[in-house]
Amino acid sequence: MYREKLKELGVTLPEAPGKGGLYAPTKTFGDKKLMYVSGCGCNIPGEESFGKLGKEYTTEQGQKWARNAMMNVLAVLERDLGSLDRICSFEKITVFVASADEFYEQPQVANGATKLLQEVFGDEIGLPTRSAVGMNVLPGNIAVEIEALVSYQ
Amino acid sequence: MYREKLKELGVTLPEAPGKGGLYAPTKTFGDKKLMYVSGCGCNIPGEESFGKLGKEYTTEQGQKWARNAMMNVLAVLERDLGSLDRICSFEKITVFVASADEFYEQPQVANGATKLLQEVFGDEIGLPTRSAVGMNVLPGNIAVEIEALVSYQ
Amino acid sequence: MYREKLKELGVTLPEAPGKGGLYAPTKTFGDKKLMYVSGCGCNIPGEESFGKLGKEYTTEQGQKWARNAMMNVLAVLERDLGSLDRICSFEKITVFVASADEFYEQPQVANGATKLLQEVFGDEIGLPTRSAVGMNVLPGNIAVEIEALVSYQ
Repeated sequence: MYREKLKELGVTLPEAPGKGGLYAPTKTFGDKKLMYVSGCGCNIPGEESFGKLGKEYTTEQGQKWARNAMMNVLAVLERDLGSLDRICSFEKITVFVASADEFYEQPQVANGATKLLQEVFGDEIGLPTRSAVGMNVLPGNIAVEIEALVSYQ
Repeated sequence: MYREKLKELGVTLPEAPGKGGLYAPTKTFGDKKLMYVSGCGCNIPGEESFGKLGKEYTTEQGQKWARNAMMNVLAVLERDLGSLDRICSFEKITVFVASADEFYEQPQVANGATKLLQEVFGDEIGLPTRSAVGMNVLPGNIAVEIEALVSYQ
Repeated sequence: MYREKLKELGVTLPEAPGKGGLYAPTKTFGDKKLMYVSGCGCNIPGEESFGKLGKEYTTEQGQKWARNAMMNVLAVLERDLGSLDRICSFEKITVFVASADEFYEQPQVANGATKLLQEVFGDEIGLPTRSAVGMNVLPGNIAVEIEALVSYQ
């Protein structure tokens, strides 16, 4: 279902990114129908970010980075759940936006990520609660990092 | 019950703030008795912040901003739950404090938020687990942003 | 069991740190088998940090601070659960790393925390999902702060 939707939208998910350290990419918990996805960066093959919003990147570019970070989250979810169709709801995401000290448009940047969710999963399932915050620096000098909590069946 | 308490304390909740982007203001999950509240800023009508702790604002002013951010969280909870009386416990909050690089009093600032919870809901229900951290910048140049996880019935 | 493992590894947990503000050190929620641990700093008696990674501290020193922060988390868990043996799984941690604007090795720093979990609890139970992010400043000028979500029985 969602695979078809992605194709329809012309979105090709990257391979799920390798782990950048000692941790679990996903973990299920609670009543075993919740899954946390470790923070995913916004680099995908051929598109690598090096810098911050308000310095190296504009808000529009940041939206692309946020979208790419969410594509990595989706790739991890598809790998670890077997299918995106098992997702019941995106419950919460945190969008970490590497930002110059005077860059104030973190929500607009984060919309790049949630717009993808909206397009693929629709409002009710796709739109999560969210915090979008400015960070002085992120791992490897990436522009955006996103972690996610989803419910699934 | 809590409405009375707020009145007793002389606290008037603002209208629940409008969304600043593509996301859900709240979402229920798990056994359907947990609710995440998206990050709320500290601006309420007539009181708007523009700056950081340790630069534009003192710790005391920051406590007021943190209290205001929590008032926004409460306003969202009341709107989406119908009544604050449905709240069983504040489980976790994250207090994002826009901070100059040499400002170290994020916990004192965050106390402005949790003191309100304590006054209204008491220690056991009101006091959540918490992280209080310094951010180089927050959306719209606000001083404080708070996200919350509550259990309810 | 895990107490023995700690002894075997030569790890002595500090006393659980005192609270630095108005909040709960831990809180159980959901189906009552999840526990959040409030953000713990990396200071333990005799080892206190004052500064940021990429400025006052190297990555290697940061790994030690991250390990110490996790020791504080474990001390809090042991105190509030009665025994570490009740822990079923480390589900999610957030590793806040105070960072100079050009320090990019937050994941390597965070590995200092998750390596301790791996050594004591093994991969499946010990390795959590994780976000490791750079902060311009943390409370009291500490180098690392960690919050944790665990499941227990």
